Amino acid sequence: MKQPIKRRSRKAGLPPGTPVHIGERRSEISHVSVIHFDATQFREHTFERVDAVTPLRAPQGVSWVHVTGVHDSALLERLGKAFDLHPLVIEDIQNTDQRAKLEDYGSYVYVVVKLWQNSRAANGTRVEQLSLVLGRDFVLTFEEAEPCVFDSVRQRLRDDRGRLRAEGADYLAYSLLDAVVDSYFGVLEQLGEQIEMLEGQLVTRPSRAALQSLHGLKREMIGLRRSVWPLRDVIGGLERGTSGLVRSEMWIYLRDVYDHAAHVIDTIETYRDMLSAMLDVYISSVSNRLNEVMKVLTIIATIFMPLTFIAGVYGMNFKYMPELEWRLGYPLVLGIMIGLGLAMLWYFRKKKWL
Amino acid sequence: MKQPIKRRSRKAGLPPGTPVHIGERRSEISHVSVIHFDATQFREHTFERVDAVTPLRAPQGVSWVHVTGVHDSALLERLGKAFDLHPLVIEDIQNTDQRAKLEDYGSYVYVVVKLWQNSRAANGTRVEQLSLVLGRDFVLTFEEAEPCVFDSVRQRLRDDRGRLRAEGADYLAYSLLDAVVDSYFGVLEQLGEQIEMLEGQLVTRPSRAALQSLHGLKREMIGLRRSVWPLRDVIGGLERGTSGLVRSEMWIYLRDVYDHAAHVIDTIETYRDMLSAMLDVYISSVSNRLNEVMKVLTIIATIFMPLTFIAGVYGMNFKYMPELEWRLGYPLVLGIMIGLGLAMLWYFRKKKWL
Amino acid sequence: MKQPIKRRSRKAGLPPGTPVHIGERRSEISHVSVIHFDATQFREHTFERVDAVTPLRAPQGVSWVHVTGVHDSALLERLGKAFDLHPLVIEDIQNTDQRAKLEDYGSYVYVVVKLWQNSRAANGTRVEQLSLVLGRDFVLTFEEAEPCVFDSVRQRLRDDRGRLRAEGADYLAYSLLDAVVDSYFGVLEQLGEQIEMLEGQLVTRPSRAALQSLHGLKREMIGLRRSVWPLRDVIGGLERGTSGLVRSEMWIYLRDVYDHAAHVIDTIETYRDMLSAMLDVYISSVSNRLNEVMKVLTIIATIFMPLTFIAGVYGMNFKYMPELEWRLGYPLVLGIMIGLGLAMLWYFRKKKWL
Amino acid sequence: MKQPIKRRSRKAGLPPGTPVHIGERRSEISHVSVIHFDATQFREHTFERVDAVTPLRAPQGVSWVHVTGVHDSALLERLGKAFDLHPLVIEDIQNTDQRAKLEDYGSYVYVVVKLWQNSRAANGTRVEQLSLVLGRDFVLTFEEAEPCVFDSVRQRLRDDRGRLRAEGADYLAYSLLDAVVDSYFGVLEQLGEQIEMLEGQLVTRPSRAALQSLHGLKREMIGLRRSVWPLRDVIGGLERGTSGLVRSEMWIYLRDVYDHAAHVIDTIETYRDMLSAMLDVYISSVSNRLNEVMKVLTIIATIFMPLTFIAGVYGMNFKYMPELEWRLGYPLVLGIMIGLGLAMLWYFRKKKWL
Amino acid sequence: MKQPIKRRSRKAGLPPGTPVHIGERRSEISHVSVIHFDATQFREHTFERVDAVTPLRAPQGVSWVHVTGVHDSALLERLGKAFDLHPLVIEDIQNTDQRAKLEDYGSYVYVVVKLWQNSRAANGTRVEQLSLVLGRDFVLTFEEAEPCVFDSVRQRLRDDRGRLRAEGADYLAYSLLDAVVDSYFGVLEQLGEQIEMLEGQLVTRPSRAALQSLHGLKREMIGLRRSVWPLRDVIGGLERGTSGLVRSEMWIYLRDVYDHAAHVIDTIETYRDMLSAMLDVYISSVSNRLNEVMKVLTIIATIFMPLTFIAGVYGMNFKYMPELEWRLGYPLVLGIMIGLGLAMLWYFRKKKWL
Repeated sequence: MKQPIKRRSRKAGLPPGTPVHIGERRSEISHVSVIHFDATQFREHTFERVDAVTPLRAPQGVSWVHVTGVHDSALLERLGKAFDLHPLVIEDIQNTDQRAKLEDYGSYVYVVVKLWQNSRAANGTRVEQLSLVLGRDFVLTFEEAEPCVFDSVRQRLRDDRGRLRAEGADYLAYSLLDAVVDSYFGVLEQLGEQIEMLEGQLVTRPSRAALQSLHGLKREMIGLRRSVWPLRDVIGGLERGTSGLVRSEMWIYLRDVYDHAAHVIDTIETYRDMLSAMLDVYISSVSNRLNEVMKVLTIIATIFMPLTFIAGVYGMNFKYMPELEWRLGYPLVLGIMIGLGLAMLWYFRKKKWL
Repeated sequence: MKQPIKRRSRKAGLPPGTPVHIGERRSEISHVSVIHFDATQFREHTFERVDAVTPLRAPQGVSWVHVTGVHDSALLERLGKAFDLHPLVIEDIQNTDQRAKLEDYGSYVYVVVKLWQNSRAANGTRVEQLSLVLGRDFVLTFEEAEPCVFDSVRQRLRDDRGRLRAEGADYLAYSLLDAVVDSYFGVLEQLGEQIEMLEGQLVTRPSRAALQSLHGLKREMIGLRRSVWPLRDVIGGLERGTSGLVRSEMWIYLRDVYDHAAHVIDTIETYRDMLSAMLDVYISSVSNRLNEVMKVLTIIATIFMPLTFIAGVYGMNFKYMPELEWRLGYPLVLGIMIGLGLAMLWYFRKKKWL
Repeated sequence: MKQPIKRRSRKAGLPPGTPVHIGERRSEISHVSVIHFDATQFREHTFERVDAVTPLRAPQGVSWVHVTGVHDSALLERLGKAFDLHPLVIEDIQNTDQRAKLEDYGSYVYVVVKLWQNSRAANGTRVEQLSLVLGRDFVLTFEEAEPCVFDSVRQRLRDDRGRLRAEGADYLAYSLLDAVVDSYFGVLEQLGEQIEMLEGQLVTRPSRAALQSLHGLKREMIGLRRSVWPLRDVIGGLERGTSGLVRSEMWIYLRDVYDHAAHVIDTIETYRDMLSAMLDVYISSVSNRLNEVMKVLTIIATIFMPLTFIAGVYGMNFKYMPELEWRLGYPLVLGIMIGLGLAMLWYFRKKKWL
Repeated sequence: MKQPIKRRSRKAGLPPGTPVHIGERRSEISHVSVIHFDATQFREHTFERVDAVTPLRAPQGVSWVHVTGVHDSALLERLGKAFDLHPLVIEDIQNTDQRAKLEDYGSYVYVVVKLWQNSRAANGTRVEQLSLVLGRDFVLTFEEAEPCVFDSVRQRLRDDRGRLRAEGADYLAYSLLDAVVDSYFGVLEQLGEQIEMLEGQLVTRPSRAALQSLHGLKREMIGLRRSVWPLRDVIGGLERGTSGLVRSEMWIYLRDVYDHAAHVIDTIETYRDMLSAMLDVYISSVSNRLNEVMKVLTIIATIFMPLTFIAGVYGMNFKYMPELEWRLGYPLVLGIMIGLGLAMLWYFRKKKWL
Repeated sequence: MKQPIKRRSRKAGLPPGTPVHIGERRSEISHVSVIHFDATQFREHTFERVDAVTPLRAPQGVSWVHVTGVHDSALLERLGKAFDLHPLVIEDIQNTDQRAKLEDYGSYVYVVVKLWQNSRAANGTRVEQLSLVLGRDFVLTFEEAEPCVFDSVRQRLRDDRGRLRAEGADYLAYSLLDAVVDSYFGVLEQLGEQIEMLEGQLVTRPSRAALQSLHGLKREMIGLRRSVWPLRDVIGGLERGTSGLVRSEMWIYLRDVYDHAAHVIDTIETYRDMLSAMLDVYISSVSNRLNEVMKVLTIIATIFMPLTFIAGVYGMNFKYMPELEWRLGYPLVLGIMIGLGLAMLWYFRKKKWL
């Protein structure tokens, strides 16, 4: 989650609908995976390039075309032609710097969402954009890079587990969105553990590194929040039954995903509140600590400055200083010094500084 | 209220509707308590396992089935079959990491709420999830662990106090939700007392431990708030008369619970405001205190540094220092020193530092 | 405004509609004052107990029954029977820990509001709950303690000033609510003066006591706000013409009270903003002051530490220190010291520290 | 803008509709200026008192009656009778402590707004309340004091510039409201300049006086905001076409004033944000400065404390201190001292403290 | 973005609809560029003055009149007559201090938006106001100064790229608004880079200059936000299909621009959150640093003050100080001093101050 806004300047001045890839290129080659299925059959193919004779749409049943890597404009345009997509859709798929949104084009619905995943490679979280086109008998999905969050759905299709094969394209789309929202829970779990750990640390010793981590977590939260708020609206829009593409039986399922998204938002807001509260604790701890340091300094100075002054007085070289001649002068002054020191200590104890 | 998000990763990749228990297992064995009642009769049974012949539904009157412990998937599935519940409902009952929500399945309503209770065991508050299914002639409730917040309702049923037996399933559901909301008042009372106590403490001596308590209370508030906001919406949704399951005579009662929930929210927001104000006071107190410490240091240094310097001057070993030979040199310098010290004190008094 | 939430635990487990007094008992004996009036007549009675033959309802005209002290359940139940009130209303009247609300029971409207008054006894503000039931030809009001905010309305009725006698029960209810909202203005005036005074004080000398007062005012504002927001909604609900109990001619009057409530809210928000701004000023002042203290310390240390060092050097007892033998050694060193001190002062002046 | 809430206590207990002047009396004598005009004629009169024969309403065309000073209840009541106003309107005109509001009385509309003006006399801004009554063929305006913000409108009427004479009462009312909103721009311009100036000042030297000004500006903003938010709603209400008093041709003009009011609100919010940001900068600057002061102190102490200690060691009077006898003892120690001082300086430079 | 509100005082007292230029005059001479085009033809002219015979409207196809420099009232009035604009529109075009707004005049729509551009000249961002009038067969645009953000659109028209020529005036207006929104992305990219850079800087060394930059960025954000929020509403208003001037085929395009505007707002809010978080980090870093400085001071003082005191004691000139006569007095005292110093160091290490 480094740069919240990507270089769009390449696109300035081009007519709308021109497909230009915006964002970092994450995979070198695009893969196209095509699955045709209905209640009784299942076929799966993988292509690296698409031409006019590539069997993208099944004559019957549902077709799920999944594209990994969105920088190949030619491929996308060919797909667009095959499924009759609006040029703006093709443009939006390539622009990986977008807000989650839902657009209803009548015969199909175009959905963009952000996907957050724990990534060992990136040593933290990885964000990518996911486009989904839902038609009456097809679902197209476009992802920036492997590994795919949809592997489990694909596996369920292959094994014919659950109702995936029996249901239509809308149920498939729901399952995919469910997988997307579930990915957020994984990220939140990890962040939750980091927050938990950091909180203990802040309490025991508020270091500069802890502040750094706190700030990092805050930034992650800002980014997550920015992704999830519109995601919830997208699912809500889908639920409110657009275009008759989503059967009313699906609403209860979409309601469920919607609730999950709401839960994610709730959790993010809670984490934000907790991080704010932790910063307050941190700042208070730091000034508490400053107070303690200053007390030590003040105690030392208050005890030794008067004593040093007394020693200085009897270090003066005046000719006529009667005390210097006294036999008991030295022990007397020493005694006074010790008494003064003890009096100071008693005073600080009384003032609860010690 | 330790970890706001529970381990859901176990569920990733499973088809929706698969019942998997999410969350900490709080009770080893599940108990099922079944109550059949109508205006004239009352029967109560307790089972540890449920099979096809267990008399769950009464031929007439209202059946209230209460399950303690939700980790037993087999039991829940059998209950689901008996009362004809959607697989998503069974899944949601087992997932104890959910947001309060209301779902209308036509012939029944599914409600999830969070329950907060003062707990001597947990030495603070205990949170658990409560699921409630309201049908035309049955109420199912699912709780994570004993002790049960519904004991008082059950007792009223047994003793035939109030209108519980005479009214239908909707009145029972209302009584149960009322007990849930009432449990929040108990928690808030306790927190209110802690806040009250802490406030006095912060004023008299702002210690590190007080800051710790303040932070703890803030976290409790964040958690409570997260639970109650959706709870109010749930009750509001029920009140707005879903599915004809709730008779219109019930609305005035639901309105009452709704008002209580609104009151709980108000109180939480008020407490949050008070805690924020207390943190401000704490921080101000700490810097005030720092100021006082620094003043002591500055006064001591300002008085003794010049004096020590003077003593140092007459401690120099120059051969030709006429003052050293004066008879009254020593008392003169002593006088000057005392005068200087008193002048400093007067100056600080004038500046209101003393 | 000490404890924002009152002990409700006494009520836990009782069936809804059970009248139990919640809150502090403020008056020992309940008084019932009954006024019957229409355009031509006026009769006033006071009772300490109510039984079946007490003339509560007038055969014609409007009856206004005012109860002081709400802990007497028997009395309230008898009143409830006489005016045919729902058990929940009786319960709510006794529960003095409620949010302002409006409930429409068809033949009457039940209104709860909070009343704030300047109180010499409580040395600040006094909060109590006020219940009002408006029927077609009666108004019931329930207050916790004397003195009564409605005395002026009663006096106007007695003297037949204004249109009170000529109009119906709705106009009476409006007059009473107007008196309630007006009581807030009195409280706000007093708080406004305190804020004004405190502001001057914070600017001239930011003391610990001022911070304490600031915090106290902030708490009062939190409490006031919590009372007034729902009050406005109550009046708004009444204005939107419920049940035909309120004639449309009344709307312009209710609109007026509504505007006053909005004005109260505006003022509270303004005061809150001002208090926040004052806290910012306070904190900034404190750190400013710390800065000044530290500057004094630093100036003193920076001037006298080098000088004391020089004196220390010439206080060393080395046998061969040529300067010590110089005739002008002492005045030279004294001159250097004075020069150094002046140079320091000039430097601090240049740096604007002096 | 000293006291946000004015003494209303004088009114407590009076029946509604009793005209009592609330607020500071700003002008000793009330002036009434009456203008009758239509497309072809224009007559202007000024009265100091109004009686039954005063020609307030013109037989044809539009009458604009402008009253300066609202403390004269008798005058207002006579005006009220002449134009058939509701007693609540007369009461509200006299109560100069009100929120901007719009009230539709069927045959006329009553509008209250707050007027902000730069005032040389008050050395800052002057707030007063302005009431406007718009009927089919008359406009009444009530202002607290001279000078009048409407002088330019009056002048345009006299000179027959623009479409003022040709249009009806609604266009006149629009022109007056436009003048009111324009007055805010003047105030904002001045405040904007002050903010600009203050910002420069805060950056170069954050003084106590700058903090004071910042706080003053913040308070002005709180007050302005409180006045303008309801003003916008008033204009919006008027625009949404009340009572047929405002012709639909006027809507585009009212829309324009509405946009100006929205612009004023935007600017106020922007200024508030800027002031908050400036306070943050101020606080950061102050602690930055403290840091610098502390560094100076620490550097001085760290250099001279060890040196003074060394000097102290060789100032001890032990009989057997071999170094004291060395020929090169003194220069050696001096050399060590200088070396130590330079090493310290080098260390601080490395640590970027110098 | 220096002065958020411009001098409007020049306009005070003038009748509405009087064209007066408000704001800084950015270009000396106004240029008028006229383009007539339809699917088959394209003609382009540039004028410096406009009179009755200037061919502004094409007999067929679409006319796009672009004016650079809005201070020439005569020119604008002539244009207004040619395209039959309302006087308020002409006035608003000249008033360069406006909020983005949309006004529907029936036969045309008037749109005002703010334009932000990276500017090398202004060494930062440049803001100007852009007015657009969309009629059935014409588009008028008014800009304050060169260089023009619309150059790319004009070039596309010239080259007949995209669908610009084939579509009508509404598509042209859409393309222009798209260019405006795109300009914001450029500004945000630049600001994003600055924020990124600044964040690194704050972490490594929190200097005064970094605080200054932070404040500058915050101000830019406040300004940007103020411009974009109403811009989004303007596009939303246009999308909701006003006046039949915008064909329903255009909605999908306008929806796209709307989404871009929403994305801009999202990004601004995210940046604001990040800047706030950065300020928190900055403040915490500064107090952390203060803590470190104070620790150094305290350590030095705590070590050397007692040592200097001991040296002072043995520098006293009492006649009878037995230690002074001891042979091993000096090494013994030296040893004690070194021991004491090491003990202190060990203590500070244990306390984790070192």
